[in-house]
Amino acid sequence: MDGPAATRHLGLDLGATNLKWTVVEREGDGSWRTLDRGSVVTRAAGGPDAIVPQLGEVGHEAMRRWPGIITAGVGIPGLYDPKAGATRFLVNLRGPWDGYPVAAPVGAALGVPVALINDARAFGVAELRLGAGRGASSMVGLTLGTGVGGVIAVDGKVHQGHDGTAGEIGHQTIDPDGPDCNCGNHGCLEAFARADRIAEACGTATAEEAVERARNGDAAAIEGLRRVGRYLGIGIGNMIVVLSPDRIVIGGGIAAAGDLLLETAREEIRRRVQTTSVSEVEIVTAELGTWAGAIGAAIHGAEVASAAEQTAPAATAPATAPR
Amino acid sequence: MDGPAATRHLGLDLGATNLKWTVVEREGDGSWRTLDRGSVVTRAAGGPDAIVPQLGEVGHEAMRRWPGIITAGVGIPGLYDPKAGATRFLVNLRGPWDGYPVAAPVGAALGVPVALINDARAFGVAELRLGAGRGASSMVGLTLGTGVGGVIAVDGKVHQGHDGTAGEIGHQTIDPDGPDCNCGNHGCLEAFARADRIAEACGTATAEEAVERARNGDAAAIEGLRRVGRYLGIGIGNMIVVLSPDRIVIGGGIAAAGDLLLETAREEIRRRVQTTSVSEVEIVTAELGTWAGAIGAAIHGAEVASAAEQTAPAATAPATAPR
Repeated sequence: MDGPAATRHLGLDLGATNLKWTVVEREGDGSWRTLDRGSVVTRAAGGPDAIVPQLGEVGHEAMRRWPGIITAGVGIPGLYDPKAGATRFLVNLRGPWDGYPVAAPVGAALGVPVALINDARAFGVAELRLGAGRGASSMVGLTLGTGVGGVIAVDGKVHQGHDGTAGEIGHQTIDPDGPDCNCGNHGCLEAFARADRIAEACGTATAEEAVERARNGDAAAIEGLRRVGRYLGIGIGNMIVVLSPDRIVIGGGIAAAGDLLLETAREEIRRRVQTTSVSEVEIVTAELGTWAGAIGAAIHGAEVASAAEQTAPAATAPATAPR
Repeated sequence: MDGPAATRHLGLDLGATNLKWTVVEREGDGSWRTLDRGSVVTRAAGGPDAIVPQLGEVGHEAMRRWPGIITAGVGIPGLYDPKAGATRFLVNLRGPWDGYPVAAPVGAALGVPVALINDARAFGVAELRLGAGRGASSMVGLTLGTGVGGVIAVDGKVHQGHDGTAGEIGHQTIDPDGPDCNCGNHGCLEAFARADRIAEACGTATAEEAVERARNGDAAAIEGLRRVGRYLGIGIGNMIVVLSPDRIVIGGGIAAAGDLLLETAREEIRRRVQTTSVSEVEIVTAELGTWAGAIGAAIHGAEVASAAEQTAPAATAPATAPR
């Protein structure tokens, strides 16, 4: 029996340092695979006026290499307005980003429909569809890096909320009198578990150095990571009581710490979570590495276009004709 | 045009003090209305051996009055095993409840399929379908009483997780070093906002007295409720950053405190939640009062049977023939 034909989709992942791209293919059976990927240095110094055209150029080059791409998704490192297709606030990229249009100019440059998604939610989409979250019904994802990104999936679908902000697990308050967070609150999970606070807890210059030292048996680094792991356990435990997920996926650069962080996190979860059987919740590290954001953005772009097609076919026509 | 015929459904709400029942009708257009309801004193002293038969008797009497009932749902005041249709742990009812079968004996007594649901989740189902949550896409519900019950809904559907425990908002840790909670953890939202802790914070004998005194201008009671409201704001704020809901519904006996609690909760939310526009999240009190649990149990029973019918018709046949 012939299924539907495979389709190709572009993903762009805007980071403060690198702009990554990927081309994925949706097979006739609905499964996904990655065809190609690449990375360029983000024109961060130029602000949005340089970066948004760069998204178009990088995407255009990928489409030249891989004919037949029909949608695109862009991973945004911060808050955005899904209805306007514009950014709102990007903590690590020089602005002004508030209300800066992205979906329309990139769509015009590429000639395909473009959907935006927060980069941590894109990570979640990718891990859920073809990474460590495969087969999970409800999933909680965390990206440990400069900040603490988050994502939740319910009934096999990433939940983004009406404004794309659902899943900001890093900004739950876990200590009312805890340290200041970059978001303006204090006592957020991120205020304990972001990279610079991990370094601080371990007495090292960077979080990477803390992980390295702990691996080599440095007692102060080991104890620092254990302390951060306990806060991580509180934050993850809260997500378990609220969502009763079947899987927790930990990604981002600092996930490389593995059990150095997760062992105490698991202990804290076992101590605190009494409403559900913790042994049934798998806590695993992410599988797709630094490409998860671009892959998830590509899948998100495809899924948004499919959903729009099912409800109102005319609305999905791109602003300019596809080549 | 003739739609599908209206159907009738029984709901039973098992409480430590009262056992409530309701009969609801699903109209041809999918909307719900309550036909009848009542309450009897729970045979709590007799434990499960007295209570489970009582569920059957009360349900049987409601079915005699209202012919044509095709499903039943039972609201459980605690943890249960949805697959086995048995209870696991009920904090306020004398046991032994661990593994005690409920769905099968009640189904055999009534001759209709029976589904169990946690009572706070039943509250959420009812408020979402015909109460203060009507029209909401994502909703967070809290019941403030002896304990703090919780419920979350995503994409217009209450999320219960694989074991029915999702939504236990009252057992998120909001202070790592906070007071002991009945669940075995400490620093849970419930440990700050359950009735006896509210009374303690206000220097009164009961939470009801605290609300009464605060209404009459008692400064200590007002300040006590404000303090509890701040913790409530932390817990609700965490749900806003994680779920980005469009509505928060507060029910349970202590919801009668209204703005005496919610004003400081809202202040705390505005102070702490930076990821989404808090002004777009409505915080409202519940509409269905003490009947929400029974109504939600009835709707849940109907929805479980409909879902089973769509996937495997034979599996929904009751153990004994319907009369």
